[in-house]
Amino acid sequence: MIADTPEPPYYAVIFTSLRTEGDNGYGAMSEKMVRLASEQHGFLGIESARENVGITVSYWSDIESIKKWKANIDHLEAQQLGHEKWYSSFRVRISKVDREYGI
Amino acid sequence: MIADTPEPPYYAVIFTSLRTEGDNGYGAMSEKMVRLASEQHGFLGIESARENVGITVSYWSDIESIKKWKANIDHLEAQQLGHEKWYSSFRVRISKVDREYGI
Repeated sequence: MIADTPEPPYYAVIFTSLRTEGDNGYGAMSEKMVRLASEQHGFLGIESARENVGITVSYWSDIESIKKWKANIDHLEAQQLGHEKWYSSFRVRISKVDREYGI
Repeated sequence: MIADTPEPPYYAVIFTSLRTEGDNGYGAMSEKMVRLASEQHGFLGIESARENVGITVSYWSDIESIKKWKANIDHLEAQQLGHEKWYSSFRVRISKVDREYGI
């Protein structure tokens, strides 16, 4: 559940979204995208939760891997459908993690 | 729900956690901490969701503000209780947001 990321530095893509009404194929695509992301070069882990807002944070070893994932053809299709059908609003924030601690 | 953050760069504190059983005062303290955080210098916004895992991302204008918030006396008490009672596991990741986009 909590991603087992390595020592920083690494990168985090913080994806925050508000959903439209109804599933409209979202659930299946969401699962598929998590599976596909986890197969990509540079993928380090992912954490996700939704209540009023949905937050998905994926972790990556480098910016180049994030760019490639964004340009992945199946992912592009999902992004397009996200725009058109699934999200009333979203933000993507690309960030560099410099420090990590926890229990 | 989605934080209305300014143009990057700014900073994100990604707090991911697994809760213990029962409330044990967590709900009230959580609300209090969100309120208190939002009053701090450098605070830009906060997003939060919990399903299996809880994710709270708070946004800050600079690292110094994050350090001050971490050292805030009421927040220190909450952190202590978090360690002792509320979280079975957590990670805090400090990151610098360099790019943001969305609809």
